[in-house]
Amino acid sequence: MLGPEQPVVLHLLDIPPAEKALEGVRMELVDAAFPLLAGIVTSVDASEASKGVDYAIMVGGFPRKAGMERKDVMSKNVAIYQSQAAALEKHASKNVKILVVANPANTNALILSRNAPSIPAKNITCLTRLDHNRAQGQIAEKISKAKDPNSTAFAVSARDVRNVIIWGNHSSSQVPDATHATVTMDGKTLPAREAVSDDAWLDGEFVQTVQQRGAAVIAARGASSALSAASAAVDHMRDWALGTNSEDKEAFVSMGVFSDGTSGYEGAPEGVVFSFPVRCAGDGEWEIVRGLAMSEETSEKVAASGAELVEERELALECLKG
Amino acid sequence: MLGPEQPVVLHLLDIPPAEKALEGVRMELVDAAFPLLAGIVTSVDASEASKGVDYAIMVGGFPRKAGMERKDVMSKNVAIYQSQAAALEKHASKNVKILVVANPANTNALILSRNAPSIPAKNITCLTRLDHNRAQGQIAEKISKAKDPNSTAFAVSARDVRNVIIWGNHSSSQVPDATHATVTMDGKTLPAREAVSDDAWLDGEFVQTVQQRGAAVIAARGASSALSAASAAVDHMRDWALGTNSEDKEAFVSMGVFSDGTSGYEGAPEGVVFSFPVRCAGDGEWEIVRGLAMSEETSEKVAASGAELVEERELALECLKG
Repeated sequence: MLGPEQPVVLHLLDIPPAEKALEGVRMELVDAAFPLLAGIVTSVDASEASKGVDYAIMVGGFPRKAGMERKDVMSKNVAIYQSQAAALEKHASKNVKILVVANPANTNALILSRNAPSIPAKNITCLTRLDHNRAQGQIAEKISKAKDPNSTAFAVSARDVRNVIIWGNHSSSQVPDATHATVTMDGKTLPAREAVSDDAWLDGEFVQTVQQRGAAVIAARGASSALSAASAAVDHMRDWALGTNSEDKEAFVSMGVFSDGTSGYEGAPEGVVFSFPVRCAGDGEWEIVRGLAMSEETSEKVAASGAELVEERELALECLKG
Repeated sequence: MLGPEQPVVLHLLDIPPAEKALEGVRMELVDAAFPLLAGIVTSVDASEASKGVDYAIMVGGFPRKAGMERKDVMSKNVAIYQSQAAALEKHASKNVKILVVANPANTNALILSRNAPSIPAKNITCLTRLDHNRAQGQIAEKISKAKDPNSTAFAVSARDVRNVIIWGNHSSSQVPDATHATVTMDGKTLPAREAVSDDAWLDGEFVQTVQQRGAAVIAARGASSALSAASAAVDHMRDWALGTNSEDKEAFVSMGVFSDGTSGYEGAPEGVVFSFPVRCAGDGEWEIVRGLAMSEETSEKVAASGAELVEERELALECLKG
């Protein structure tokens, strides 16, 4: 995640009922004899776990259970992110880079940001890389199957697909957008629309499949995405820390970042954490890729996702008031 | 596992009741957009899954359940490894390299070998790298804690510990042996016994901790080792395929390999799969490191583990007869 020679000290935080299982995780980490693992802190105390951390991946959240109102769930998560924000604010490294994975990821990140005023807003992000990777995977699979429906080898692999975009909220209102995506195949790089050559699919099924993929994985596995979510979190942090793509300066990825209202994208409201196309130069900074054209239809969907984020923010703020 | 630039096609085999979950795993693999993933085959048919495979990691087995006799369990596993052997024999690449992870790993590997006569015995191994890594981890942790009991950073990390040995069976009769182990600390490499400077611990608690570690992890996590076992399987295959340690020609690891009776180690019977210190040159071959001195006490324990393997073999052969 931080390069092939970078030793890391892991800080693992869990809730008190999981303390014994957490010790089991620590044991397994020792047992794996990882060459770059330079230390382990396990704790059920957010302050202790936050001490001096440079990168924080927040996977803790309260899932919606049967019969719970939306506001009840939000209220639980607001409480979690308020307290974790306080711990990070007080104990983490001053330049800590934070990635929120747990849902509602964008709004959890916003709550965290509001409750950790000394941490720059640009250092607090949320995960939409999973959706981004899913979009790459869907396009690669679609082209591969079109070339040979019976082949199990991919004619085009996910790394050959670049510059998809996930706009908005990490929810089913998100907008997967292949307008600027490219595909490298048979030695040539061409627009994804040309490579796929199935506009109806790209504008319909592709979008819905990515939007609904989390639920589809749960239906198949009987459990939430785990491998792919973890892998996406690593991708997000690696690109943020080391740069988006050293071979292709034009390449970008999707990250949920604080929207200050200057992105130039109309559907992205000010004051929420919003998924944009983002480029990281490798110095730990990121910038929104500006001025990308958007169809009217996409534009409307992006605005709807933005509106949902504003609504979530208002609900969260209500919860904050108590 | 096979190098940073080697694309792989994954073949995933599971049992029919897990077919839907297997599809969930396939979805997550697509969703992860792994750059080196060049294809996926999922199947509940061993023949289909074995087609053309170059490396096979066998994690399927039948666990012992409450009230089951040892022979009943062995009988279930013999049946599994007989049929998987037939599938690999018929459909895998002629030079397939096989790693058996599922318990009883050594004897499962032996059954596999006997039922796949065209696959060279040297290509069929079992996992004791997990025990090996655990031994490295324990020594690193012991020294680190002795240096500073309150530090969560490791003064010595697992990669600084080399040349531990696991002898015998991947069971609690295994013999973790630090006699030839070295530790690199403060810029110097010294014998582990000197670095640890606690003979009673090395000859007692260390050995028992490694032998019983699987059970301890289950007690803590409520589930078998997963992360550490998967990581050890990758380590085993990587070293086998690419070489033990390119920086240190004297370095070796532990692998369960076919014992043809010429190892020179008296406690290792002929005709079982036995864990030895092994060196891999990087051409896909391995050789047992010969002539390492062994204390009388270790010698006796190694012989006992060997005797257990002979007993397991006889039980398995009885099951094979039906």
